[in-house]
Amino acid sequence: MKSTRTIVLLALAAALAAPALAQFRKPEDAIKYRQSVMYTMGTHFYSRIGAMANGRIPFDAKAAAENADIVAMLSRMPFVAFGPGTDEGKTDAKPAVWTEQAKFKDLGEKMQAEVLKLQAASRTGDLDVIKTAYRATANACKACHDAFTNQ
Amino acid sequence: MKSTRTIVLLALAAALAAPALAQFRKPEDAIKYRQSVMYTMGTHFYSRIGAMANGRIPFDAKAAAENADIVAMLSRMPFVAFGPGTDEGKTDAKPAVWTEQAKFKDLGEKMQAEVLKLQAASRTGDLDVIKTAYRATANACKACHDAFTNQ
Repeated sequence: MKSTRTIVLLALAAALAAPALAQFRKPEDAIKYRQSVMYTMGTHFYSRIGAMANGRIPFDAKAAAENADIVAMLSRMPFVAFGPGTDEGKTDAKPAVWTEQAKFKDLGEKMQAEVLKLQAASRTGDLDVIKTAYRATANACKACHDAFTNQ
Repeated sequence: MKSTRTIVLLALAAALAAPALAQFRKPEDAIKYRQSVMYTMGTHFYSRIGAMANGRIPFDAKAAAENADIVAMLSRMPFVAFGPGTDEGKTDAKPAVWTEQAKFKDLGEKMQAEVLKLQAASRTGDLDVIKTAYRATANACKACHDAFTNQ
């Protein structure tokens, strides 16, 4: 007989998994979705804000803020697409995503928190403030990618 | 000798092309970016709002509004990625994108206008209003895809 704790955990897991299952018809749709979100986010983060932070393109405060808004919205989107059955196929995600869910969630939330700080920094119009927030965010991205992807 | 009109047109073309060239290192990056944006937009439009409009999932006014916001943001993003040199490679875009730029721009703007109406409709919390705006937007998507892609 299952303990109360097990039942609560199973119910919680089902509640967490249900939206993910409902939103994608096939596991490969979820994989393609999360890869699309990540690629788009990477473009706006590295190739737009990062290019300004690293001096590859001229600093444009308005563009930095617009790109930070896009990154902020995208940063909330991929995690629903790591549901059951999406660990196989054309994915660079490591099995640890599913076996170490607490750590995955924690690193994902740390990235989202840094992105919100980057969004706030982008409103200052001060490139040095943006550079600091950019680097902290890049480190948060890297921490999660190092642990959970083969990329 | 070039006419004044030709010079003006060339200057305009350069101004329009410059941001696109500056934002992507390689044509294939631009192609992957626009495909990623389109796939993400399609998921939120067809598989979220569309699923509610067609009764495949229960209507959730808050989720409809959130998805409409995401679609609105994404609808502004792909067009910068159809710059020179991005007509070849792994793309379903037809040559008409580059040979009929005025029509392409017009249909893109019509889609964006319908998306803004969908975003406004999503704020009513009225599924019938959302359904009407959803269908108008879907038609605007289709008009552009029929003319400019092989998909």
